[in-house]
Amino acid sequence: MKKTAIQDYYEDEFAVCYGCGRLNKDGLHLQTFLVGNETISKHTPKENKTAISGIVYGGLLASLIDCHGTGSASAFYAKENGIELKKYNAPRFVTGNLNVSYLKPTPLDSELTLKGRLKEIKGRKVVVSIEVFSHEVLTVKGEVIALLLPENFRV
Amino acid sequence: MKKTAIQDYYEDEFAVCYGCGRLNKDGLHLQTFLVGNETISKHTPKENKTAISGIVYGGLLASLIDCHGTGSASAFYAKENGIELKKYNAPRFVTGNLNVSYLKPTPLDSELTLKGRLKEIKGRKVVVSIEVFSHEVLTVKGEVIALLLPENFRV
Repeated sequence: MKKTAIQDYYEDEFAVCYGCGRLNKDGLHLQTFLVGNETISKHTPKENKTAISGIVYGGLLASLIDCHGTGSASAFYAKENGIELKKYNAPRFVTGNLNVSYLKPTPLDSELTLKGRLKEIKGRKVVVSIEVFSHEVLTVKGEVIALLLPENFRV
Repeated sequence: MKKTAIQDYYEDEFAVCYGCGRLNKDGLHLQTFLVGNETISKHTPKENKTAISGIVYGGLLASLIDCHGTGSASAFYAKENGIELKKYNAPRFVTGNLNVSYLKPTPLDSELTLKGRLKEIKGRKVVVSIEVFSHEVLTVKGEVIALLLPENFRV
């Protein structure tokens, strides 16, 4: 596993996300790592992130998929376009569409593993499919349509 | 607007959700009100819930849509089936699928309004479409496929 998360290659302005920004002091600090052809992220939910007792809150699962999706899009886009990632040149994607299917309840008692795979790259659009595992059982599937933020988006 | 939120009719066991449970002390306490044929919810995001500076985090928007979706499903299902809501008999729905389209950035500087409409009821399944408004501008659209939790789901 690479030591540096994709999110650690975002420039400071793009590193304040509640879900995955290293500069958001209250946030979840999700980290996405490119490993071969897939992306991996781990997260241990806090006890208060319940849906019903003992089950992880669906909003948290959607949030993790969202951030792991845009992080994965950045990693796959950089790889596809021969961009050598360094601090702080990672392309920054935002979510156009997020689709989450809750296949079964996700227990709150352990670390979750998220895996991402590239489905499609077309210009500025990257589609990533995500799977969430608890105790090595697939509990949630998601898809993120991520859009590359233009360099001059603030202008 | 009715004084009692749908979530306040959930029995205690189903009122611990991080997004909308009255008994989750750290949660968002989202409340869904049935007003005529639509459901309304309001939420003011905290300053730390950023995506990039000044813009609301997509995971929070997905979370609000998720909880307002299941709350709306409960309200629409009760109405359709002639259930007079009282403490604590509200049908409890869980999310099967959540779909969120981010149409434009949602500014972090004001209260958000969520509106829900019934799209379909078929047996235990209720489909709700949700719109999120900031400064009266539609910024996010969502759809929740909600499933009625069976009474004996713990057994």
